[in-house]
Amino acid sequence: MHSLPSHAMRPLCLNPSLCSSRFPFFSFSIPIFHKFKNNPTIYKKSQKGPPFFSIRCCGSGSVTAKPSWELRRNRAAVQEPDEKVDALRQLFTKPGIGIDAYIIPSQDAHQSEFIAECYMRRAYISGFTGSAGTAIVTKDKAALWTDGRYFLQAEKQLNTSWKLMRAGNFGVPQASEWLNDVLAPGGRVEELKEVISKKNLELVYLYDLNLVDEIWKESRPKPPNKPIRVHDLKYAGIDVVSKLSSLRAELVAAGSSAIVISMLDEVAWLLNLRGSDVPHSPVMYAYLIVEVDAAKLFVDDSKVTSEVMYHLKKAGVDLRPYDSILSEIRRLAAEGAHLWLDTSSVNAAIVETYKAACDKYLMNRGSRGKRKNKQYFESDSLPVGPSGVYMQSPVSLAKALKNPSELEGMQNSHLRDAAALAQFWCWLEEEIHKNVKLTEVDLADKLLEFRSKQDGFLDTSFDTISGSGANGAIIHYTPEAESCSVVDPNKLFLLDSGAQYVDGTTDITRTVHFGEPTAREKECFTRVLKGHIALDEAVFPENTPGFVLDAFARSALWKIGLDYRHGTGHGVGAALNVHEGPQSISFRYGNMTPLQKGMIVSNEPGYYEDHAFGIRIENLLCVQEINTPNRYGGIEYLGFEKLTFFPIQTKLVDLSLLSIEEMEWLNSYHSQVWEKVSPLLEGSARQWLWKNTRPIAKQ
Amino acid sequence: MHSLPSHAMRPLCLNPSLCSSRFPFFSFSIPIFHKFKNNPTIYKKSQKGPPFFSIRCCGSGSVTAKPSWELRRNRAAVQEPDEKVDALRQLFTKPGIGIDAYIIPSQDAHQSEFIAECYMRRAYISGFTGSAGTAIVTKDKAALWTDGRYFLQAEKQLNTSWKLMRAGNFGVPQASEWLNDVLAPGGRVEELKEVISKKNLELVYLYDLNLVDEIWKESRPKPPNKPIRVHDLKYAGIDVVSKLSSLRAELVAAGSSAIVISMLDEVAWLLNLRGSDVPHSPVMYAYLIVEVDAAKLFVDDSKVTSEVMYHLKKAGVDLRPYDSILSEIRRLAAEGAHLWLDTSSVNAAIVETYKAACDKYLMNRGSRGKRKNKQYFESDSLPVGPSGVYMQSPVSLAKALKNPSELEGMQNSHLRDAAALAQFWCWLEEEIHKNVKLTEVDLADKLLEFRSKQDGFLDTSFDTISGSGANGAIIHYTPEAESCSVVDPNKLFLLDSGAQYVDGTTDITRTVHFGEPTAREKECFTRVLKGHIALDEAVFPENTPGFVLDAFARSALWKIGLDYRHGTGHGVGAALNVHEGPQSISFRYGNMTPLQKGMIVSNEPGYYEDHAFGIRIENLLCVQEINTPNRYGGIEYLGFEKLTFFPIQTKLVDLSLLSIEEMEWLNSYHSQVWEKVSPLLEGSARQWLWKNTRPIAKQ
Repeated sequence: MHSLPSHAMRPLCLNPSLCSSRFPFFSFSIPIFHKFKNNPTIYKKSQKGPPFFSIRCCGSGSVTAKPSWELRRNRAAVQEPDEKVDALRQLFTKPGIGIDAYIIPSQDAHQSEFIAECYMRRAYISGFTGSAGTAIVTKDKAALWTDGRYFLQAEKQLNTSWKLMRAGNFGVPQASEWLNDVLAPGGRVEELKEVISKKNLELVYLYDLNLVDEIWKESRPKPPNKPIRVHDLKYAGIDVVSKLSSLRAELVAAGSSAIVISMLDEVAWLLNLRGSDVPHSPVMYAYLIVEVDAAKLFVDDSKVTSEVMYHLKKAGVDLRPYDSILSEIRRLAAEGAHLWLDTSSVNAAIVETYKAACDKYLMNRGSRGKRKNKQYFESDSLPVGPSGVYMQSPVSLAKALKNPSELEGMQNSHLRDAAALAQFWCWLEEEIHKNVKLTEVDLADKLLEFRSKQDGFLDTSFDTISGSGANGAIIHYTPEAESCSVVDPNKLFLLDSGAQYVDGTTDITRTVHFGEPTAREKECFTRVLKGHIALDEAVFPENTPGFVLDAFARSALWKIGLDYRHGTGHGVGAALNVHEGPQSISFRYGNMTPLQKGMIVSNEPGYYEDHAFGIRIENLLCVQEINTPNRYGGIEYLGFEKLTFFPIQTKLVDLSLLSIEEMEWLNSYHSQVWEKVSPLLEGSARQWLWKNTRPIAKQ
Repeated sequence: MHSLPSHAMRPLCLNPSLCSSRFPFFSFSIPIFHKFKNNPTIYKKSQKGPPFFSIRCCGSGSVTAKPSWELRRNRAAVQEPDEKVDALRQLFTKPGIGIDAYIIPSQDAHQSEFIAECYMRRAYISGFTGSAGTAIVTKDKAALWTDGRYFLQAEKQLNTSWKLMRAGNFGVPQASEWLNDVLAPGGRVEELKEVISKKNLELVYLYDLNLVDEIWKESRPKPPNKPIRVHDLKYAGIDVVSKLSSLRAELVAAGSSAIVISMLDEVAWLLNLRGSDVPHSPVMYAYLIVEVDAAKLFVDDSKVTSEVMYHLKKAGVDLRPYDSILSEIRRLAAEGAHLWLDTSSVNAAIVETYKAACDKYLMNRGSRGKRKNKQYFESDSLPVGPSGVYMQSPVSLAKALKNPSELEGMQNSHLRDAAALAQFWCWLEEEIHKNVKLTEVDLADKLLEFRSKQDGFLDTSFDTISGSGANGAIIHYTPEAESCSVVDPNKLFLLDSGAQYVDGTTDITRTVHFGEPTAREKECFTRVLKGHIALDEAVFPENTPGFVLDAFARSALWKIGLDYRHGTGHGVGAALNVHEGPQSISFRYGNMTPLQKGMIVSNEPGYYEDHAFGIRIENLLCVQEINTPNRYGGIEYLGFEKLTFFPIQTKLVDLSLLSIEEMEWLNSYHSQVWEKVSPLLEGSARQWLWKNTRPIAKQ
């Protein structure tokens, strides 16, 4: 499964440059308040969920301007009444609130890619269940922005009270621009982007009220409370005490005295814990604060078993209620702590709470300072009072550099995953041979059945992308039982899937044909394969960012004027998230993180022919040192070691386009696949693997 | 010839990000004045040369601090007395000046790569004649910074009163850091970099005095005054009126009313003129100001023939004295002109003169404005009064996109150049065969002799790099008659040379062996060749910056842990500078200029084994549209067309490392070389070409 395509919408992103490695945008619902200028209001935190971020429209104007995009659009139908939206609007006019508009994005408070149902507020209010989208409700409008992956789904799921904003299409404003158009001028802006600033909107923080939760009420699912488990040291490789010790050394080196970890996978990795709070990612909702001499985990204690309690106690980690994170932040600031906050992942409520508490500290010290000057200026070099260290979380890189135990778990789980896949494909080819009609969802279900039988299986690592023919060209296609296609044996079939095992995370794409592929399909497949091989075999000097290698994967497609509109590689966690940073391999040149020994990246070039077929070939790779005969510049040269061992369908290869070296790569790969995976198989699946790992040769 | 290596020194660069495409640093001598704080002084322009840029040390401290690097260094010898430096220091203490230090960089006022002798002030004062280096003279120290290319040469040329600063070596401070160390603290900074700012230095502008010129006096060469010639329309392709008209359209679109062109090649290109003021580049010292309804060329009129006068008159271009550029800038500002200035190429004297004149305009208008408010605010959208448009010169890109006539001239001149090279190599191999001892300089001279006989030959396009054995590993090696090596027939020989013809500019590197190359030499040569072929054959979508392709040229070297420390490609002018922007192909990722149809780039990967040999294979390429069978995304796909047609020595190719496709590339290239160049040859040179273009085959 690959990362977001280039046309994925990221409106209103707090920090687009950093968000690129962090996936989507906001972590909050954003109510827009109509308040007076220069009068920011901090509300008290609600007990009902994470704190919310708000944009407040300042000034006295009313909503009168007719935006130009509105004129370009034919209204397809009369608006249906929508009870939820109406209930939300009722709240707008409640005395003392005076809201103009309310923004509801997809995210939870931890920037998670997969989130618990109780935080799916945008899906609840709009009915649209896609993974990316932002809803905005004003007094008389309701609009939902999503990207090209979800236009069809959103058209089906939104009723006519909602306006679908097809992000990226000509004439469709970004959410931020739309706010400019529908909201009145006359205020000022804090923290939001230039676009919004043109009409003078102000951003304030609201902690006491989530309007969606207010109308959701009883029907809102309870927050998840599945028990947390200890991630065995034989898989984690490094114990918690050592990890905390390394982190503390980094804190000291950066001049900070504490750090807030809010990314759920970072908390899980650092504490060698795993959870089951969200689908596909083995994480639990929690914040972690690590100080130089203490560590506190903010988590619902109903999830904490006695084993976990003992595990944490050994590592000197105390428990605190999930909801008490902000008061702890205030306490730290009051103590003068220099807090390390990664603003690309930590939510704005935490950042602003800390900043406000620092201001308060300085005001108190300041008045004393005036009386006693020496005390005020503590030293020449240290800042006066608490001040934040705003840098990337050091856990992000530490987690990305897999240790030998993590790598071993990844290798082992990939072989078991390959065994399940062999059983699946063997079964599938037999069914197709028997002319059994199977839908895309049937296949995803059957694959899950095979994977479930493997040792240590926990979950899929994302929703299986199972696409026959034209559906394969929809890059993030997720088949639905009621609407998906029957797999057509005469078309290309693309299957992108992965699993969570107790020792590792997998992510693999294969594209196959059950009958006779066309010359066009073979040419495109072979060029995708050439790109896959070129990246797999790349050797590069240390300090090379991933984007430098991206062109290797596209070159063979470029030669005939083809390309693909997504990145080539994303990071993958070890028994953690299937998408992680900080590295990537992409045609977007912004990510300067060098590829480093122990990092895992996917290698997944593709080609998508609209309304016809999709092709993608994806393996996971681990960056390793290459023992080159020279070391020019006295540095290391790096390359990749494969984690994924599964046949690539040779029927789809046009041998005339493959060089001898590329053919040898394929034969050598298949020989390794047989060697590594066949011991885990027997019977027909083993025969299938044998048949599908035979060497090919040019005539 | 390739662009600067990565270790080239660029201290004190005004705008390093922009300078990267513009080659070296300053265009001025920089006197450092010891003056009082917050009291910038603008001196009147000298009649003796271009205006100078100055750093002024503000504050009252004296030079006492002992910099740490000083302690690390053993003083090799007692300082010799140096008359020039002493004379310069005499001027420091002249009443009314009070200078602490004086900086003398390499450049002229036009950012030229090759400069006239009268502007070689750094060479005059220090004795060091290398192309890159910055001299700084303080009251008791004199130091010269240069990069690794010139350490040996500088050691020989500097006397002991000079300290050689080996830029890039451990413990050697940058010039800017050194200034911090030797100058006293206590002032403030304008316009210079953060490093300098730490010790509070101020930058002011000095127009009335160049101290080096003061001591140079009578011995200073006269400014060049060779006649300017008209560049024939059959080579230029577009007449001056059309070029000016396009430029004026760009001015209007950018909201500016005039532009100052100071890059000598831009002036020459825009006016279809060529000069002979500097070696290797067919340009003349001049500034050009293009207004919406006028154009003025600032040039010494003794260079202007009646033909040139008529040519300019036809295009509506008036003549002005070279020295009157600043007064014209002031006049334009006084008229309220919005001047377009490319601050990466226009010198600071022009920029500051304009800014000062704008301030003056506003002061005058401001007082009137207060009386008559409406007049002051001319309109809502236009800025009040003159204001600069600071963007890249539009001429830079226009010049880079060659028109069909320019391309034809480049193609033709490359074939004549190849004919001269065939005669040269044929002659050389015969001499070597006869055991004649020839030095590297003998070879450069003989090559010049053959080139001189070609139609339209004017000059070399840079100093020939002729390096035998270990000298080939010195990337910018220029052999000197008294010190260079005899060419060793048993070692690799690298020859990087080029010529200026009336219709085009060439730049080619070939590496050969006259005897039996070692397996190591063959492996390295073959991998450089593989990189050369990979880049030559690249196809890429429009809007691709050059750096995306750089890795193609290195990949084969990386596989065995080798690399080279210079970019892979630079732009080349059509009968103009051998180095031009804005495009490049480099491992430095800053240059986002997309490669575009009609751009010329060099393709010159290499490998350099210290103290052993150097390898480089360089052709010039023109970016062209590729007629791909698909056009995914509805865009153009681009690739390269070769301009250089000359044999690559097949003796050096290790066929086992070459793919079939690469071998076919080489055979096809040689077949084209024979077809295109043989008609220009006869006798033994033709036989040599025949022998050296025969196809190779794998056993």
